[in-house]
Amino acid sequence: MNLSDFLKIARGDEPADLILRNGRVINVYTGEIMDADVAIAGDTIVGVGSGYKASREIDLGGRYICPGLIDAHVHIESSMVTPPQFARAVVPRGTTTAITDPHEIANVAGAAGIRYMLAASEGLPLSVYVNLPSCVPATTMGTAGASLEADDLLALAGLPRVIGLAEFMNVPGAVLGLPNAIEKLLAFQSRVIDGHAPGISGKWLQAYAGAGPGSDHECTTADEMLEKLRLGMIVFVRESTAAKNLRALLPAITPQNSRRCAFCSDDRHPSDLLDEGHLDYLIRLAVGEGLDPITAIQMATLNAAEWFRLRDRGAVAPGKRADLLVFSDLKDFRPEMVYAGGTLVAQDGAPAGPWPMLDIDDSSVLDTVHVEWERLSFAIPAEGKRAGTPAKVRVIGVVPDQVVTKHLIETPTIVDDLAVADVERDLLKLAVVERHKSTGNIGLGLVKGVGLKRGAIAGSVGHDAHNLTIAGCDDVSMMTAARAVGEKGGGLVAAAGEDVLASVPLPIAGLMSDQPVETVRKQMDELVKVAHELGSPLHDPFMTLGFLALEVIPSLKLTDQGLVDVEKFDFVPLWTE
Amino acid sequence: MNLSDFLKIARGDEPADLILRNGRVINVYTGEIMDADVAIAGDTIVGVGSGYKASREIDLGGRYICPGLIDAHVHIESSMVTPPQFARAVVPRGTTTAITDPHEIANVAGAAGIRYMLAASEGLPLSVYVNLPSCVPATTMGTAGASLEADDLLALAGLPRVIGLAEFMNVPGAVLGLPNAIEKLLAFQSRVIDGHAPGISGKWLQAYAGAGPGSDHECTTADEMLEKLRLGMIVFVRESTAAKNLRALLPAITPQNSRRCAFCSDDRHPSDLLDEGHLDYLIRLAVGEGLDPITAIQMATLNAAEWFRLRDRGAVAPGKRADLLVFSDLKDFRPEMVYAGGTLVAQDGAPAGPWPMLDIDDSSVLDTVHVEWERLSFAIPAEGKRAGTPAKVRVIGVVPDQVVTKHLIETPTIVDDLAVADVERDLLKLAVVERHKSTGNIGLGLVKGVGLKRGAIAGSVGHDAHNLTIAGCDDVSMMTAARAVGEKGGGLVAAAGEDVLASVPLPIAGLMSDQPVETVRKQMDELVKVAHELGSPLHDPFMTLGFLALEVIPSLKLTDQGLVDVEKFDFVPLWTE
Repeated sequence: MNLSDFLKIARGDEPADLILRNGRVINVYTGEIMDADVAIAGDTIVGVGSGYKASREIDLGGRYICPGLIDAHVHIESSMVTPPQFARAVVPRGTTTAITDPHEIANVAGAAGIRYMLAASEGLPLSVYVNLPSCVPATTMGTAGASLEADDLLALAGLPRVIGLAEFMNVPGAVLGLPNAIEKLLAFQSRVIDGHAPGISGKWLQAYAGAGPGSDHECTTADEMLEKLRLGMIVFVRESTAAKNLRALLPAITPQNSRRCAFCSDDRHPSDLLDEGHLDYLIRLAVGEGLDPITAIQMATLNAAEWFRLRDRGAVAPGKRADLLVFSDLKDFRPEMVYAGGTLVAQDGAPAGPWPMLDIDDSSVLDTVHVEWERLSFAIPAEGKRAGTPAKVRVIGVVPDQVVTKHLIETPTIVDDLAVADVERDLLKLAVVERHKSTGNIGLGLVKGVGLKRGAIAGSVGHDAHNLTIAGCDDVSMMTAARAVGEKGGGLVAAAGEDVLASVPLPIAGLMSDQPVETVRKQMDELVKVAHELGSPLHDPFMTLGFLALEVIPSLKLTDQGLVDVEKFDFVPLWTE
Repeated sequence: MNLSDFLKIARGDEPADLILRNGRVINVYTGEIMDADVAIAGDTIVGVGSGYKASREIDLGGRYICPGLIDAHVHIESSMVTPPQFARAVVPRGTTTAITDPHEIANVAGAAGIRYMLAASEGLPLSVYVNLPSCVPATTMGTAGASLEADDLLALAGLPRVIGLAEFMNVPGAVLGLPNAIEKLLAFQSRVIDGHAPGISGKWLQAYAGAGPGSDHECTTADEMLEKLRLGMIVFVRESTAAKNLRALLPAITPQNSRRCAFCSDDRHPSDLLDEGHLDYLIRLAVGEGLDPITAIQMATLNAAEWFRLRDRGAVAPGKRADLLVFSDLKDFRPEMVYAGGTLVAQDGAPAGPWPMLDIDDSSVLDTVHVEWERLSFAIPAEGKRAGTPAKVRVIGVVPDQVVTKHLIETPTIVDDLAVADVERDLLKLAVVERHKSTGNIGLGLVKGVGLKRGAIAGSVGHDAHNLTIAGCDDVSMMTAARAVGEKGGGLVAAAGEDVLASVPLPIAGLMSDQPVETVRKQMDELVKVAHELGSPLHDPFMTLGFLALEVIPSLKLTDQGLVDVEKFDFVPLWTE
């Protein structure tokens, strides 16, 4: 709001618009809980204390007030819904600001994808900021639909709501000083640069941290987190659908270092958002595991605001944006009222009041699945090796609820000079099919841990290049699933034989539905149920599937160009001794 | 240093220039003390840990290493020496960065004074950043030598080493939304704005904090500090020559809020700098009073760096500037080695190695005392009131070691229809003579607490307008002292009758000497000794004198235009009932 108007009300000469009376304010600056009224005018907090007057008052009867929550790092695309639908899912949970990295859609549609996400997130009850995807494509070892160089990123850097550079995944590029990486780091030197350094430590981590990336959300152990904190990195504790790190990281958080910790959701599927929640869930989980509730709220508010230089929010104080949550129980954090910019936008876990209905042009991000189906084959030639020969293969080992994988060596089952799936040993076939430019690229391999007993699952969500990723027990099922994804212009499919059993259409860039979050959630539930019926024991086999192609996360991954040993950061042959 | 060169050394492919081996590193991020080597290349820390190689090594034998100290707010002019000499005094004490507010010289010489301070502080072992003086003149109730409007400040904002806006003293302007104040606040909205709100609380403080100023260094009580911290203000704990707040404020500092606290020296005279020290003294004092030593070091390093967005310093971590201190005792913090930008610049409390000798053009800031001596008179007409009449006068009551004063009411001694000094009752005469433009303005009043038994003291340092300020027992002594200041082109003088007893010439803007700090210190010691011999019991009567004209600090002050009741923010007559 206008500074002169703010001053008139703040100093008490004119009444506020609204007062939340008799609150217990969580002061994230001092860690105190203060009995106070909160006076609001327009979108701004004008006073915290007593003696303010307003045209409207709400008595909170001693309930708590804290700042709206800030998700430090999220790929909205991973919710499989558009930004307005993502907002409908997370705002009632108390999230009023999200720093999104449109990395997924940028890998499909480049700058047009980023501009779509900005347009689709304008004017929502959720403040959406964009950190620009720093590594599109993630590497040259996978084929994405677009690439963004330093100049392309700088062309976007001046847009409203663009903060800086998101997860700088090209760790070798940064540490070895490769021109493409250095150019980007230097271009964004004066802005926020988020890091992404899973498992990196020692001198490499020191070089990486000193090169510019100042945060990390890929810690999986408390020791890793501590090493990063000691170097000055801000650590976002993540609890996503596919990567659940919160419990493992909590022991690293101390009263001395918590100021340098925040929370992020990274990638969360609709059912997790709607059932468990969003940052509210992370806070409940952390507090349930023993983290001080005030510390947890600080992590989810002020700490993130400070890191992202969002100086207008993150605290209940005069001059700050009136993003406020009202709740009753510190030990069971559930926002009952959510104010965004001074307006009540959610109550008791559901959207409240009139939400903006946006009409967004999505033509630039439709029709993104291009495969020459006739040329497609999932056959893995055994290269002259007969069944019973001791030739072995590298197998991707799934780690449940993690995005990291194991690098396994197994003896494959060979039939008719082809390596085939072996359900008894949970060795499924895995294929990654380039889908942006009809290159005909296909990567083939084996995966252990998906657990299907029959059929196949496929999806156009395959981090980060988002090629078609298919895991299955036989080639017919795999082909059925893959083609069904293509026919829908993108999506997730479960199939058996020639039957499509369930699907979630994702026509927007092959990543997002055009349907309400509740619809997508039902489709997804049905799809996962079918996958479970097909034998998979994984919480969400499609989230797992979607990360099997991510060649920047250890240990063994498969892209459309072949198997990648992430530690070596290079291709390795499927067959080995 | 160049990023590519940094990376080569940080990742271990090339040797560093210097390694400090076997240190105990104060990790200001986590609050830990870590056994580690610190590798340095050029001006940058390239690694903290083990396994680095370098052409040169120093074994610290387990001594501590912490970041160089950062003075969050200082007026270098108050040290009465030029920036290079200030650096010689404070760098050996461990200060490697100072945020200076050239408010004093700007009040004398305007933008030319600020440009002089920038030029005179270039390339020093002390990194000097400038926060632009926000309130020149402090008010229109005193006559300064220059005025700086928003446009004038914006013209300086783009200069290297300029951070933002310094102590925004115009609290009424900010809170009441006066155009001049609002214009400045809005012009610097995206930059650092330091506050200055002594004694302000409640709604006014909320309005002030919400208007932009985000820090404060004028707290005198723990309650005041807590109120400001709760609003999100960063509090600089000050211990200056004239205002000693540290002991009073320590009780407010908690493990939860210490991240929002820093240290500042504000104004320290040469003898305090050379004898007590600088921020090292504040750390010793705080730790001696029970503050955790790591917390104290964090306040003096990281916390200040974060507030001023100096992202290249404030911690011992790769990529940060190699401003490092080596010391032996956490409980008695005395830097034994001081590295600035990777170079050893001080050892055992004294400058080491070749310091740059700058040749600075000071012509724009010389010859600044302009008074028509013939027109000068210190007589205070009793306005027809005879001695013995109950007519009373407002008297400025000195509070030892504070810049605040009391607003006293006394019955003056009247002789020959003139109010005169009464040494028995410690009622001295006080005069403030405009010295910039020969306006002939003179403010006259009485002061209690200076304690002179005979003679007078005078100075061209008189915050903030820096007019001639003279306190004395008789008009002849006052005139002698005042004229002596004028003859020297500025300075501090003690006189008795027609004799000048001691002086410190301050030809640069009437504020700074052109002599080495040690010389100024000797001159100052002699001067203070003489003032003590004349009867003053004050630690430094000239520091006290220099603040008696500061019309923005409560309660009663005297400018060249008259007596100011600071609470009313208006002139009040000398005579009262």
